[in-house]
Amino acid sequence: MTTPPRPAPLRLGIAGLGTVGTGVVRIVQTHAALIERRCGRAIEITAVSARDRSRNRDVDVSGYAWEDDAAALARRPDVDVLVELVGGADGIARDATEAAIAAGKDVVTANKAMLALHGQGLAEAAEAAGRVLRFEAAVAGGIPVVKALTEGLAGNAVTRIVGVMNGTCNYILTRMESAGLAYETVFSEAEKLGYLEADPTLDVGGIDAGHKLALLAAIGFGTRVDFEAVELQGIERVSIEDIRHAADMGYRIKLLGIAQMTGRGLEQRMAPCLVPVDSPLAQLPGATNMVMLEGDAVGRIVLRGAGAGSGPTASAVMADVIDIARGTRLSTFGQPAAGLARAQPARTAAPTPWYLRMTLIDKPGALAKVAHALGESGVSIDRMRQYGHADPFAPVLIVTHATTQDAIEDAASRFSSTGVLVGDPVALAIEDV
Amino acid sequence: MTTPPRPAPLRLGIAGLGTVGTGVVRIVQTHAALIERRCGRAIEITAVSARDRSRNRDVDVSGYAWEDDAAALARRPDVDVLVELVGGADGIARDATEAAIAAGKDVVTANKAMLALHGQGLAEAAEAAGRVLRFEAAVAGGIPVVKALTEGLAGNAVTRIVGVMNGTCNYILTRMESAGLAYETVFSEAEKLGYLEADPTLDVGGIDAGHKLALLAAIGFGTRVDFEAVELQGIERVSIEDIRHAADMGYRIKLLGIAQMTGRGLEQRMAPCLVPVDSPLAQLPGATNMVMLEGDAVGRIVLRGAGAGSGPTASAVMADVIDIARGTRLSTFGQPAAGLARAQPARTAAPTPWYLRMTLIDKPGALAKVAHALGESGVSIDRMRQYGHADPFAPVLIVTHATTQDAIEDAASRFSSTGVLVGDPVALAIEDV
Repeated sequence: MTTPPRPAPLRLGIAGLGTVGTGVVRIVQTHAALIERRCGRAIEITAVSARDRSRNRDVDVSGYAWEDDAAALARRPDVDVLVELVGGADGIARDATEAAIAAGKDVVTANKAMLALHGQGLAEAAEAAGRVLRFEAAVAGGIPVVKALTEGLAGNAVTRIVGVMNGTCNYILTRMESAGLAYETVFSEAEKLGYLEADPTLDVGGIDAGHKLALLAAIGFGTRVDFEAVELQGIERVSIEDIRHAADMGYRIKLLGIAQMTGRGLEQRMAPCLVPVDSPLAQLPGATNMVMLEGDAVGRIVLRGAGAGSGPTASAVMADVIDIARGTRLSTFGQPAAGLARAQPARTAAPTPWYLRMTLIDKPGALAKVAHALGESGVSIDRMRQYGHADPFAPVLIVTHATTQDAIEDAASRFSSTGVLVGDPVALAIEDV
Repeated sequence: MTTPPRPAPLRLGIAGLGTVGTGVVRIVQTHAALIERRCGRAIEITAVSARDRSRNRDVDVSGYAWEDDAAALARRPDVDVLVELVGGADGIARDATEAAIAAGKDVVTANKAMLALHGQGLAEAAEAAGRVLRFEAAVAGGIPVVKALTEGLAGNAVTRIVGVMNGTCNYILTRMESAGLAYETVFSEAEKLGYLEADPTLDVGGIDAGHKLALLAAIGFGTRVDFEAVELQGIERVSIEDIRHAADMGYRIKLLGIAQMTGRGLEQRMAPCLVPVDSPLAQLPGATNMVMLEGDAVGRIVLRGAGAGSGPTASAVMADVIDIARGTRLSTFGQPAAGLARAQPARTAAPTPWYLRMTLIDKPGALAKVAHALGESGVSIDRMRQYGHADPFAPVLIVTHATTQDAIEDAASRFSSTGVLVGDPVALAIEDV
């Protein structure tokens, strides 16, 4: 019996040796035999690239060729797959990705910003070149949600995608509640722990989570990724008082993404919301992520796991790499990018109850003016509470009956002409998920 | 510009037109355009087979060729993929599957019994013939857990698989607790609702869930599926008293499967266990399934969804069919079946606290004899309670400190020689999952 020739290994060029990059190196090094059994071929790293060659890393990369320039790495003839872990929507990451595609390489990336902003063009370029561009690690860390949606639910008309997809925001909100601390305090803690992006607005402004939502929506609804159309609200204005009021009423506050296709178009919203305390979403601790995928046949599938970190994100990168090694070749968004429809962006129209917190100047008739403004906007009040206070400013909490975001924003604009509000109200939808 | 030739459709032969089969027909009929966009080719049903041609079905199958014999269906030249939804480990299902493989067709099945008992041989036959045999729908209904484990976690050494994977058992246990009803009462309800298999032991004896666990273990640990080695305990002896005692202590009882590879071999156990009430597993309602996959890189991923039903199971069947249509060709267990290792079966050795309930003959020294027997087996008692009672039989509840299953079974065998027990004790592990 002759041994069949050993198939050629799949050769990776890894651009970016930070937390995720070193995690990928570690998996390739420690699980070489396991991965070869699973793929029917070996996976090797041939070359790496990073900002600083001299930096001390806790993995040994001395056996790989070094490139200072990630685009040069991408073009190397001994690289089959560019693993892009540099990050950032443009610059090095995008240049390297474009270079890889132009040179006929497959690309695996964890870069949500690049794909949310340039995914359509990159996917079209890859597909025109007969190459794949995959991004499991870009959404919800180690959770194989891109795979679940693109493949596992491929027989479904996707009806809705709901998720908590930014671990840092979830950490901040969870910690505020559990320790009773102010937003600013926990934000500083998170900063010290290295949980925040260099530009923290990416996290707390909901941008990072919005990128992820836009990517899942493109797959789920077969539309061009449209991050600009995501209605974004960050967690910066969520106070410990909001968290306490929500808890009193049986809710927790989560930065929640919701995407759904309606008769009017594609709704995409990422905003802090109140969710019932017994909902699986409400019970999500710390930096965990959760995504709910709803399809017409399957109903609701819930996926939960670590949303970030070296091991989990590297696990997702390797899932894409192993798919390629096994010969699985899928379009970036689950169908040819060139054929993706342009979705009509739609404002969220499904009515929900809303939580409103505002500060009134404590004078007779102030509350009545607010109530009147709400009535004028067609918003009816379920509960209203004015809290005890020592200064001339009265904190007021209102829970409305189900109403639309448009009506709430109309009311908010009327508030300003009442002259009794201090600052803008905080308005959070109450989502029954 | 010329239109490229339309690729040939993938042609399905569906054997079995029960709940799942009609669900598959419905998806193919309603989502033809959507699926064609996603696959780059159409998926068509060309022929069907079922027990009773004249039966009224809520889908129209009149446009498909009819075969009385599923094996003949499998051999039809106009069938590319046999979709086996007949069920049963042997007989029609196995004959049709073997016929399909012999005729060079791919097979998609929802048949956990057939795969748990004959999966190794069938997978080897399929792989020798260059065909795929896929079974997403056989485990945890609509949850894409086979895909998550085989592909999403392919870069991980899988460390543990834990799951609630029989919806009927979970329905019975959940309903007993919520309605305070006896096992027998809820069992009868479930029977009337059609929730039970024709042979209910498959469900309540843990066999069906054991099949699923054995299949996941084979993928996760790269070993031959070995259902015989699964330690099985059903839910038949779980009483409403057990559920109440567990609740008093902050636990719920779930039929829990656990598989893990240890230095001594592969542990596979499916048994009712106590789980902390705030664990995601404990909060699983009714017929929902949940699987936790643990890998060395990814940590713990939790997947939750409908474990049965027409739509969810058909969704999983279609995921496999669409994989084939897209050209994804994976080994049945994630690596070539012929190379799978034979696992050494190992008894569960990790010590846990145990819950013991027994009935004593109410006479002086009875409790002391039980305590002594436990001590002789090296089992130390955390809590012990004798409940108030009117008859000469005293119900006793014991929670042990962490100890092994071997020690518990040793103690149970000593109990019988004390002469103070009525019947056998109920012994349930307390799992901190």
